[in-house]
Amino acid sequence: MISEAMTGLGKKRSTIREIFEYGNQRAKIVGRENIFDFSLGNPSVAPPDCVTDVINSFVAEERAEVLHGYTSATGLEWVRQAMADSLNSRFGTKFNKDSFYMTVGAAASLCIVLKALACPGDEFIVPAPYFPEYKCWIENTVNCKCVLIPAEPSDFQINFTEFERSLSKNTKAVIINSPNNPSGAVYSEDTIKKLAALLEEASKKYGHPIYLISDEPYREIVFDGIKLPFVTKYYRNTFICYSFSKSLSLPGERIGYVLVPDEMDDCKDVYAAVCGAGRILGYVNAPSLFQRVAGKCADKTADISIYNKNRDILYDGLIKAGYSCVKPQGAFYMFPKALEEDEVAFCERAKKYDLLLVPGRDFGCPGHVRIAYCVQTETIERALPVFEKIAAEYRR
Amino acid sequence: MISEAMTGLGKKRSTIREIFEYGNQRAKIVGRENIFDFSLGNPSVAPPDCVTDVINSFVAEERAEVLHGYTSATGLEWVRQAMADSLNSRFGTKFNKDSFYMTVGAAASLCIVLKALACPGDEFIVPAPYFPEYKCWIENTVNCKCVLIPAEPSDFQINFTEFERSLSKNTKAVIINSPNNPSGAVYSEDTIKKLAALLEEASKKYGHPIYLISDEPYREIVFDGIKLPFVTKYYRNTFICYSFSKSLSLPGERIGYVLVPDEMDDCKDVYAAVCGAGRILGYVNAPSLFQRVAGKCADKTADISIYNKNRDILYDGLIKAGYSCVKPQGAFYMFPKALEEDEVAFCERAKKYDLLLVPGRDFGCPGHVRIAYCVQTETIERALPVFEKIAAEYRR
Repeated sequence: MISEAMTGLGKKRSTIREIFEYGNQRAKIVGRENIFDFSLGNPSVAPPDCVTDVINSFVAEERAEVLHGYTSATGLEWVRQAMADSLNSRFGTKFNKDSFYMTVGAAASLCIVLKALACPGDEFIVPAPYFPEYKCWIENTVNCKCVLIPAEPSDFQINFTEFERSLSKNTKAVIINSPNNPSGAVYSEDTIKKLAALLEEASKKYGHPIYLISDEPYREIVFDGIKLPFVTKYYRNTFICYSFSKSLSLPGERIGYVLVPDEMDDCKDVYAAVCGAGRILGYVNAPSLFQRVAGKCADKTADISIYNKNRDILYDGLIKAGYSCVKPQGAFYMFPKALEEDEVAFCERAKKYDLLLVPGRDFGCPGHVRIAYCVQTETIERALPVFEKIAAEYRR
Repeated sequence: MISEAMTGLGKKRSTIREIFEYGNQRAKIVGRENIFDFSLGNPSVAPPDCVTDVINSFVAEERAEVLHGYTSATGLEWVRQAMADSLNSRFGTKFNKDSFYMTVGAAASLCIVLKALACPGDEFIVPAPYFPEYKCWIENTVNCKCVLIPAEPSDFQINFTEFERSLSKNTKAVIINSPNNPSGAVYSEDTIKKLAALLEEASKKYGHPIYLISDEPYREIVFDGIKLPFVTKYYRNTFICYSFSKSLSLPGERIGYVLVPDEMDDCKDVYAAVCGAGRILGYVNAPSLFQRVAGKCADKTADISIYNKNRDILYDGLIKAGYSCVKPQGAFYMFPKALEEDEVAFCERAKKYDLLLVPGRDFGCPGHVRIAYCVQTETIERALPVFEKIAAEYRR
């Protein structure tokens, strides 16, 4: 007599969470230092000082009933303006406050955009590898069809042959995630240009806009001096779904935004739909103290160089040990090939050494395993001999 | 090509918000001190000191990446145990941590419970006067039928004649809100007992549990030494939807919980459905710093005596001026009869004096007006002559 779908979703924890919980249990037996837990994307680097400074100064100086009071549903004006200013100065865009809707994190941003867009019969395209919750939200939050595109494992850009084939009159939007969880790939300017051209063409062909939903929680975490192409500059019907969880290392506080750019077709109506969706999903306003933190720290990040160092040590070590892997250029994930076709069996073997990895099939890409290297550098250094030992087993 | 329903919901602001925005515009012209804005339920009393103390101590003593990190989706264990302990000590209940699911405020609590329960064809009963968003969520978040019960204006308890008539095989749940927004009425033990008996009987008759959803953001704001009947003690199939917005004066921070009591039929499955619903509505976890604030301050409240004083001054003043009103016993709202049948016309007349009230029809109870007296006491004192002046106009 209750919703079976919801009971099912509540009972089936994600594989990532299962592995993480297993790690916690094992840690109690063999000691935390003997577990090599690469399961969870929980930032290991401390938030930048500005986070604590901003909390302290607002708590000291603002009247508490104002500081913790309701804000407008769209967010505080000055905070939204700060979001615009930060993007404009870094990406050469020309946004203003009225294009931003502050949210309770990236998951909220995505659910709100899906809900704002979805009509019965709509299809949403998701290129693999992808964050597993996308499929869950498309199918359950808005009851639409999730069309998955197989991965392009040579570089983890987009498999455009498959992509073109998947476009149809029912396509409402495409969700991309660059820098990518789980591959760490950053979509090149070429990829974004090609994607934009195909969407432009298909929008014309089918007589309605096909939206691009750019999920960018890792936008600030890029290496090797890469310049990330800012997607709205290439395709006007783009939503940016952002979260400060990873850049400021505060995933528990749930703060992010949806950006509906001025250039978007019918942008006022679309923005209103975003407001309506936020309202009916039960979001009254984004947390008020952390709106202020986001507003004051929008240009800051945690010390990304630590993730860069982790990547270098892990990547070099894996290659040396005989693993094959596309070198990640962002986020804090690596996505090597398993040493046998069945990556679940590979993960089980690793588990015997208390090395915890996530099978690629959860991300729509079997044969690979995800390593979340947002851990202490020392954990990586101590795990590398284990990776070597497993590789040696496979060579036997 | 986007969701028309969402655009509509986003464009049509609630009447309350419209009036509030009007007040802000008027304040710029005639000065804030000349506006008697009783439109919004935004707590006027400062949060208790413990809120600031807890923030300061956690920020000073906990590692920032832990403090602001992900928590379990259900909430921190010690926080959930603190929720249980607080209720157990104050209401003689026997809950434990596993019955609690921390949420991003009361709106989230309600949307999650609705989503956990709703199946196609379900009906949800809402006795008037009611918080307007209930209808919006029932109709739009879960696409079910909202069955409204007319108010019982003699005391704003439940109109049981109408209530009995509205029960059907499709009834999934009843939403109650006591202390009530907008009437300030507190449901008596008799009311709760009668409601429980009717739901018990109907559950038996229709062969499935009919749930009670008790929305209790004003639970801690009661006057005259009233003992609030704790609903789960009278009816086992009750969800408690709570928020700390009003008791701790932090509505902007979005922190609350859903309580699924052990006594509920199939409570494990129902709890799982709550988790599933939270997941697909995009709630990853309740804000982590404010989970801790709630955990440490669960037994505390803002200075409720200020609302009590406001109530007394306003109630006495209105009665003296010839208004007719059920004396509120809780929350911070008063719901007198308008001085003409069409309360919208009455509100328009009051508006000419910059006295801002909300018409009762928005709460399912035309002929009345809501006064949110969570304002400075001085504002009430200065508004009373205006109420008198308007009453005099009607006597002419």
